Amino acid sequence: MDYKFSDRIASLQPSAIREILKATASPEVIPFAAGNPAPEAFPVDAVREIGANILMHKATQALQYGITEGYAPLREFVLKYMAQKHKVGKADDDIIITSGATQVMDITSKSFLNEGDTVICENPSFIGSLNCFRSYNAKLVGVEVEKDGMNMEKLEEVLKKEKKAKFIYTIPNFQNPSGATMSLEKRKKMYELACKYDVLILEDNPYGDLRVEGKYIPSIKSFDTDGRVIYAGSFSKILAPGIRVGLAIANKKIISKLTVAKQTADTHTPMFSQMLVYQWLNEYDFEGHIRKIQDIYRNKLELMCSLIDSELGDFVSYHKPQGGLFVWCELPEKVDMLEFVRVAVENKVAVVPGSAFMVDEKEKTQCIRLNFSTPTDEKIKQGMKILGQVKKQF
Amino acid sequence: MDYKFSDRIASLQPSAIREILKATASPEVIPFAAGNPAPEAFPVDAVREIGANILMHKATQALQYGITEGYAPLREFVLKYMAQKHKVGKADDDIIITSGATQVMDITSKSFLNEGDTVICENPSFIGSLNCFRSYNAKLVGVEVEKDGMNMEKLEEVLKKEKKAKFIYTIPNFQNPSGATMSLEKRKKMYELACKYDVLILEDNPYGDLRVEGKYIPSIKSFDTDGRVIYAGSFSKILAPGIRVGLAIANKKIISKLTVAKQTADTHTPMFSQMLVYQWLNEYDFEGHIRKIQDIYRNKLELMCSLIDSELGDFVSYHKPQGGLFVWCELPEKVDMLEFVRVAVENKVAVVPGSAFMVDEKEKTQCIRLNFSTPTDEKIKQGMKILGQVKKQF
Repeated sequence: MDYKFSDRIASLQPSAIREILKATASPEVIPFAAGNPAPEAFPVDAVREIGANILMHKATQALQYGITEGYAPLREFVLKYMAQKHKVGKADDDIIITSGATQVMDITSKSFLNEGDTVICENPSFIGSLNCFRSYNAKLVGVEVEKDGMNMEKLEEVLKKEKKAKFIYTIPNFQNPSGATMSLEKRKKMYELACKYDVLILEDNPYGDLRVEGKYIPSIKSFDTDGRVIYAGSFSKILAPGIRVGLAIANKKIISKLTVAKQTADTHTPMFSQMLVYQWLNEYDFEGHIRKIQDIYRNKLELMCSLIDSELGDFVSYHKPQGGLFVWCELPEKVDMLEFVRVAVENKVAVVPGSAFMVDEKEKTQCIRLNFSTPTDEKIKQGMKILGQVKKQF
Repeated sequence: MDYKFSDRIASLQPSAIREILKATASPEVIPFAAGNPAPEAFPVDAVREIGANILMHKATQALQYGITEGYAPLREFVLKYMAQKHKVGKADDDIIITSGATQVMDITSKSFLNEGDTVICENPSFIGSLNCFRSYNAKLVGVEVEKDGMNMEKLEEVLKKEKKAKFIYTIPNFQNPSGATMSLEKRKKMYELACKYDVLILEDNPYGDLRVEGKYIPSIKSFDTDGRVIYAGSFSKILAPGIRVGLAIANKKIISKLTVAKQTADTHTPMFSQMLVYQWLNEYDFEGHIRKIQDIYRNKLELMCSLIDSELGDFVSYHKPQGGLFVWCELPEKVDMLEFVRVAVENKVAVVPGSAFMVDEKEKTQCIRLNFSTPTDEKIKQGMKILGQVKKQF
């Protein structure tokens, strides 16, 4: 049979970049291309205790259908915590528990995007979210990310022009892949522009708790008096990604539509995962655990940056991020970036070519993304040494 | 802010029917409207053992990211089992593990439906799937379900007319809500028609293992030589729905697109859920457990049918289903069906008005759906007595 796939999915063809990345799945390859948390960052003992407790005392509830909005104690806890700690969530706001933050992008797209509507994205941005927007046949318009976040003049130009813009997609903290953190001024300006041009902001904050230096900056959602910011959070980076628990906090009317969209997508997020997160938040020192993770990642980031300096020296330029999982390195103009990535993979070091994150994959970029959370310290040292060798061929 | 939701989601407005159903959430209401498995059907002891085992020996794997296609041992086990036991899955086929069977409908829709494409559905059909197709702005065309499945003459008429038909959606075993089981002849005919008019079949089989009487009938996928059947399975009814594990078996090219679609939806299904299902299948007598569940539901079905006969007598007509979770009852022509439902709810018995399942909710139906798996035997007796009283008002 000759399959007639939808236009939206046909547009997500495997690209040359993804073909390069396929070669990186092998275990002997050093994984600077991944985005997995360090296994030592998982609170394994707590999970064992909580898991045993749920299965002993609440097995039936963990096995039965739940409601689409999510496990009520978890929703209440997170809503209260986010309001008190981060000023995220006002009286008119509500929360939905999702199957990872990825699902926030999916159900927000389903709820707001007609075909051909525009999503304004940081350029570069997280490929998973870009592909999600593409899968709704949205038009993606990229705005350059600077060291302190999106260029606001360019954002306003785009907003003036794009009459069908529905939302601005931003990762304000330790952006994936650029590592950039948006300044307070730019966050305020983005909110002001969203009000002026009457669009929503989809604020994706998976890495917010992974700050390892610099000063806390409040999220855009904390200024939101209009109900125009949809805040996406995740437990993937602070607890564990394999449980797939994320959340959205937004105006009640929006949450009610996201709930309808989630109902058509997966009915609800698994009960065991939700109950696990709730008990962890409620009964364990999760803030202490977050500090522990920050220490792990601070050390790994320092290690990687010192090795970038010693092994790659003037060959690359980068801004050291204040947190997150990635360092975004720019190669010299004369180097063929894709060729550099290919040779690195050939030498068993997987890095992601920057073009994977461009709103238009054909757009030129000299950057590569290096992840420091997945490899062990030993592997970071080995991998950076190899990249130092690869450099000499260019 | 005045929200501009997408057309697709705006069309899923809460209806009068759903407003009636809202009143049924209260715990003192007898739940004939739900579709939850009986809690005594959960293999709680096995889940406790397996859960402890995973958390003790494979915690890191259960907490880390997995691949989108699903946990490899589970995929292999199910693919082999389905081929051997049900002749589902040929050499060209592959499997993806999904977040409940609901997600099969979602990612199949995303992968195949352009806006305005047609989905041919049994009429009535499962509201969750209908809403999923609606959420992609598909045109739904219903074909009447008879006691032995879809009317094949009408199906062919529709296929002749609908040039943009992409797939036929069917629940061949103990259909929700009608309880109908499609005959072998009709299954073959449906496959033949799908070939003749070059459309896919989305075969949804959540209840297949819940047969309590009559002879096993092979699934449509077992005749599939063309790769035109997408088979959706689920562990919700035989293990537990709260873990949200389903699957699709289809041609490799289709599974590869479904994988891309799932990547944009939730990255992967939680690892703990998948590992739990795998160990249950691999190490426990799951076929013995299925027989135990069949015994539970056989008794509940018998109880409900005998009470329909004694309490409602000539007032309703129904075909006793050979399995599944529901009895579909038709009220006399002169009775206002929605008013009957309203009065039943007022008297603390929740039943679902048949119109909720119609492809066009405004289409007239005299039917109501009764679920016998959720209420205890005691509640079935109480609830049917109350319906017997309600009847007298009509």
